[in-house]
Amino acid sequence: MPGDSIGKMFKVSVWGESHGPSIGAVVEGCPPGVELDMNLIQEELNRRRPGKDRFVSSRQEKDRFEVLSGLFKGKTTGTPISIIIKNNGFNKENYEELGEVFRPGHADFTYRTKYGIRDYYGGGRSSARLTAPIVVAGAMARQILRNELGIEILAYVKQIGSIEAAIKTGEAASRSLADSLINFPDKQREVEILALLERLQDEGNSIGGIVECTVRNTPAGLGEPLFGKLDGDLAGAMMGLNAVKGFELGNGFECVELTGKENNDEFTVVEGDTVTITNRSGGIQGGISNGMPIVFRVAFKAAPSISRKQRTVDVHGEKREIQIQGDHDICVAIRAVPVVEALAAIVLLDHYLRHRGQCGVIKK
Amino acid sequence: MPGDSIGKMFKVSVWGESHGPSIGAVVEGCPPGVELDMNLIQEELNRRRPGKDRFVSSRQEKDRFEVLSGLFKGKTTGTPISIIIKNNGFNKENYEELGEVFRPGHADFTYRTKYGIRDYYGGGRSSARLTAPIVVAGAMARQILRNELGIEILAYVKQIGSIEAAIKTGEAASRSLADSLINFPDKQREVEILALLERLQDEGNSIGGIVECTVRNTPAGLGEPLFGKLDGDLAGAMMGLNAVKGFELGNGFECVELTGKENNDEFTVVEGDTVTITNRSGGIQGGISNGMPIVFRVAFKAAPSISRKQRTVDVHGEKREIQIQGDHDICVAIRAVPVVEALAAIVLLDHYLRHRGQCGVIKK
Amino acid sequence: MPGDSIGKMFKVSVWGESHGPSIGAVVEGCPPGVELDMNLIQEELNRRRPGKDRFVSSRQEKDRFEVLSGLFKGKTTGTPISIIIKNNGFNKENYEELGEVFRPGHADFTYRTKYGIRDYYGGGRSSARLTAPIVVAGAMARQILRNELGIEILAYVKQIGSIEAAIKTGEAASRSLADSLINFPDKQREVEILALLERLQDEGNSIGGIVECTVRNTPAGLGEPLFGKLDGDLAGAMMGLNAVKGFELGNGFECVELTGKENNDEFTVVEGDTVTITNRSGGIQGGISNGMPIVFRVAFKAAPSISRKQRTVDVHGEKREIQIQGDHDICVAIRAVPVVEALAAIVLLDHYLRHRGQCGVIKK
Amino acid sequence: MPGDSIGKMFKVSVWGESHGPSIGAVVEGCPPGVELDMNLIQEELNRRRPGKDRFVSSRQEKDRFEVLSGLFKGKTTGTPISIIIKNNGFNKENYEELGEVFRPGHADFTYRTKYGIRDYYGGGRSSARLTAPIVVAGAMARQILRNELGIEILAYVKQIGSIEAAIKTGEAASRSLADSLINFPDKQREVEILALLERLQDEGNSIGGIVECTVRNTPAGLGEPLFGKLDGDLAGAMMGLNAVKGFELGNGFECVELTGKENNDEFTVVEGDTVTITNRSGGIQGGISNGMPIVFRVAFKAAPSISRKQRTVDVHGEKREIQIQGDHDICVAIRAVPVVEALAAIVLLDHYLRHRGQCGVIKK
Repeated sequence: MPGDSIGKMFKVSVWGESHGPSIGAVVEGCPPGVELDMNLIQEELNRRRPGKDRFVSSRQEKDRFEVLSGLFKGKTTGTPISIIIKNNGFNKENYEELGEVFRPGHADFTYRTKYGIRDYYGGGRSSARLTAPIVVAGAMARQILRNELGIEILAYVKQIGSIEAAIKTGEAASRSLADSLINFPDKQREVEILALLERLQDEGNSIGGIVECTVRNTPAGLGEPLFGKLDGDLAGAMMGLNAVKGFELGNGFECVELTGKENNDEFTVVEGDTVTITNRSGGIQGGISNGMPIVFRVAFKAAPSISRKQRTVDVHGEKREIQIQGDHDICVAIRAVPVVEALAAIVLLDHYLRHRGQCGVIKK
Repeated sequence: MPGDSIGKMFKVSVWGESHGPSIGAVVEGCPPGVELDMNLIQEELNRRRPGKDRFVSSRQEKDRFEVLSGLFKGKTTGTPISIIIKNNGFNKENYEELGEVFRPGHADFTYRTKYGIRDYYGGGRSSARLTAPIVVAGAMARQILRNELGIEILAYVKQIGSIEAAIKTGEAASRSLADSLINFPDKQREVEILALLERLQDEGNSIGGIVECTVRNTPAGLGEPLFGKLDGDLAGAMMGLNAVKGFELGNGFECVELTGKENNDEFTVVEGDTVTITNRSGGIQGGISNGMPIVFRVAFKAAPSISRKQRTVDVHGEKREIQIQGDHDICVAIRAVPVVEALAAIVLLDHYLRHRGQCGVIKK
Repeated sequence: MPGDSIGKMFKVSVWGESHGPSIGAVVEGCPPGVELDMNLIQEELNRRRPGKDRFVSSRQEKDRFEVLSGLFKGKTTGTPISIIIKNNGFNKENYEELGEVFRPGHADFTYRTKYGIRDYYGGGRSSARLTAPIVVAGAMARQILRNELGIEILAYVKQIGSIEAAIKTGEAASRSLADSLINFPDKQREVEILALLERLQDEGNSIGGIVECTVRNTPAGLGEPLFGKLDGDLAGAMMGLNAVKGFELGNGFECVELTGKENNDEFTVVEGDTVTITNRSGGIQGGISNGMPIVFRVAFKAAPSISRKQRTVDVHGEKREIQIQGDHDICVAIRAVPVVEALAAIVLLDHYLRHRGQCGVIKK
Repeated sequence: MPGDSIGKMFKVSVWGESHGPSIGAVVEGCPPGVELDMNLIQEELNRRRPGKDRFVSSRQEKDRFEVLSGLFKGKTTGTPISIIIKNNGFNKENYEELGEVFRPGHADFTYRTKYGIRDYYGGGRSSARLTAPIVVAGAMARQILRNELGIEILAYVKQIGSIEAAIKTGEAASRSLADSLINFPDKQREVEILALLERLQDEGNSIGGIVECTVRNTPAGLGEPLFGKLDGDLAGAMMGLNAVKGFELGNGFECVELTGKENNDEFTVVEGDTVTITNRSGGIQGGISNGMPIVFRVAFKAAPSISRKQRTVDVHGEKREIQIQGDHDICVAIRAVPVVEALAAIVLLDHYLRHRGQCGVIKK
């Protein structure tokens, strides 16, 4: 069973490899008659582009997406939207020598073992470059969620290494992020992080980070028990992202040390709406949104491409040493911010359409 | 799109409500010709049964499962296996008064909002009772994985409140768990935990916990990039479990503070097999198993059914107070252990069959 | 990939074997809050019951269905509806001798070859008995379609052997069928057919037939291009029925000899609605309903269980002779009428919900 | 639920519109390590190209396909194969006037009603042009089936109007088709048909036809009961093709007039293999292949684009007259031959992989 798609009613299938002629996605199930602002989508894509800043991969990509189908005079037609992005800022030769050696921390060994063959240029299918079409598809979903339902999705870097943003969850505003080089909402600690990143870059090293995401104005009722829960689907989507090792919703792992009395979110009524007084559950209860902000965090490990000599094995089962060249991301969490937002948008729009299908009013 | 199923090739669809006449599951795609040991399956089911110990719900259930189809003279036929478990140890009257009031921390409000109607007896569809047929289906998968592939799955309580088992990941042996009242592999700290649980029980309170699961002897190659990754599917399955708020693989959230140099798992060769020297990645790289033990942790919040008076709202939008009666689980992580194992087995067998379908040798 | 389910949003998964303890279905995605008339559903089920008439299998089955989940105080809750029907009117011993021999025209050989094992009691999984839960699930769908959308589904026997009902498509009224022993809308030719069936029964022989089905008041717009077309899904569902060898929509195979001028359905306006003047296309164009009656026909071969001695082969690859005992259906088309209606209802409700999901108005 | 894909393990998702910049498909689940002969695939595509013959649409298309992903040094990698075909031989202006009027026999009205918007250039999404990427994907499947399993698929025009090829089913050899202008295996009657087509072309009229397809050397055991039957899936795929109104397997609708004695296929043993003496069932029993040739027929209606003045209605609900200009296919069955083969190949490979997944030997 192929695993190239996310979503059931709003469905995004991603194809391509890092160093192929192009990469892309097919977006199925988009509601028809929607006018999409292509400039806004391109802006989203620009946010994850490599080569625009220090601390990220130096690969030069224009990353202009094109839409090949599913639009008619600027509006969606309800038929598949085919997205394509050309690859160009790369050099295949760098990778020829890597073809026979498994880079530690990468998917080289597992792809080779699974398929008996692998595209080893730039990581091939396992490259984070594949997140570019996800961002485009997600930006479409996000626009529909925002314009039609008022849903706002915002992600940011919450922590890099041991340096955490000193803000309360949900306080990060998109304005403050605009000034940040690293999608970080705390100006003061950003200075510390920049120093850390600079040092790591000099060492050819890298570091992990946490991305936090909040979704506001989600209507209550999205999510399908038992195995299509909104939190389950968000977790599945995020854990599938490159370098992700953990996911938590609301207070997450902190809940372990709390008693029921401390942890329960009591209900009250505000302006006629039933809301919870606290939001430790992170906006989802029993797998279904409750209308409070959805809050989750995603843990990213340090990028495995480092310049230190490492022990490894080659395809012939021989021990080898490897030293990876070139500029790579110091902290993948930084560029993952728009990807996390995109995946959240895809999951939410998918669940919105699923919910409307089953629970809308039946009428001719 | 209904969300009642897990798995694509080995697929388990769960039906039922806490206080209906029965609950069950339909298991599709089971390999044919397999002899299943029904006693072993019943033993798994007994492990999650309520009413057998202190600290767990006092509901009295025999929990005998029956198989209504898909077996012929003791062997699987490749056709759907229908599992049914009768409900009997409950009293509907206790719940009539709860029908109009939303219990904090439960799914009452979200189900009601989503569907406009909800079965409020014992939590209805959102009850953890629905994990019983999951355990039966998972025990079938587990038997096949063990007998045919030698795969061993073992989960245990790693932490309750702030008391953590003083063992290294993977050291927990099933023998030591057999003696534990709480599926906990550290005898000394178990005493502390029992004291904590007793105190909480007296207070009508509850506490969170962490379940850790290790899977040994998984062949390398299971998992489908990009959106059917083995870790993504495990995360999605676990986050869909009642009361779960977090999931992490390998070193999980700890990876955030590590550099690439500290975090990468280098490769070596042992007895002709390519293995990693460390296993911080938890046995999965790029979404595909690498043959090392798969290790993940699941965070459970405290059970929300507590006896303290809590503020809430009713279906008419009026503020109310609620006080929940009866004996409930003090720490849901304890009984979740066999459920985590069952879900892991389902996900692994599903991926094994998917992998065999795509990547087996093509021949007539 | 298991193939036990039909539908994506309204999804019916069928389990069981002919001579197991029971058979059943799980219905997922049913809209919540719907009051279902269980007596009407039982009446549908009675229509396909064996043993009630001449010319059909003499197996005695009460065929009372039970609902084990998904209803609350008489209304659907939006969660899975588990249907169960007990098996009792059979004798396993008759079949023991058939276990090693492949009955011509049956699925004995193919199941055995596919799975390496088969339940040979009464055809096991391949028995038409499995259509009973389909009828129950379809009756639920049909009630929703009728009550909420005014959609009316009516099937009838159009032809048995070479004797065709002398009515125009769509003229068959449900009233006239009530008087028929064989679901046949032409009283005069029914006499001929009854004589034919009597003669075949004496000979231990059987005969083929055609079921025609019309669906009225379908809203225009149901069906998903390219591979989820309404006609494609109807064809797939019907071809999956036991003994079906052909499917045609509208004028079907007759269209082959017509020119475009003769075959096109021109449009006009009637009472403000755009309609086609003729309906050769059978109510579906480009895979999407156009609001005209949907008309299709399904060809059933003669039941393969006949009393004549037949040449065959056994599981050891030895040539054998076989003579099948007992009373069997003379013409399976007769009892297939409610099954065709049920499958049509399932496909239509599924597409209605899918359409509502994608193309409903987006609003909070 | 989008309907743009066919197959579950070997899955083809088709995107694009007739007059967009390009059309394409994403092929998921292809077995890895397979060397594909691109020239053979291009030859298949050439067979369905318009503009190469009389009697077919005069649209000039080069129809060169490109593969953008999923291949590495000429071999499949097991990851998605993205296929793209540029559109160029068209003139959008011809269609501007058609934007508001519904062409009889086309999907204009149903798309407009379903989505509220439609791409009216060349039929947009409903154009038979979308079969081009299907042919490419199918040619890949066909190559794998042939090279790895020896399965041979052959389709041909069996009948046009009332003129039928005087050959027995299965006698058509690919050699004889190579000489035919119309994929017709009977040289003598081809003359009659050519005269008919010429006359119809002069009249601006069109005609229906039947395509017959045989699949040889299919292993027994492919197909999934109950709702993933091989015949059900073939029927669903074919009924989804443009202009198709009927599908039959084996003797199809003829079976209606036969008794069980006349219709049953008895078994015998030939060279150690269990085979049926006759093949009225068309190679599938109980939804599963039995190893005999699979034979099915597909009925195509006359192309609805005719030059006669026709009555219709516009998007404003006003009655209109329409006269369609340009050269169009006289008989769509002719160019449908490679498409029928392609869809058959996709369905068969999908079922082969599904079967291997569930029923292969379990081993490490």
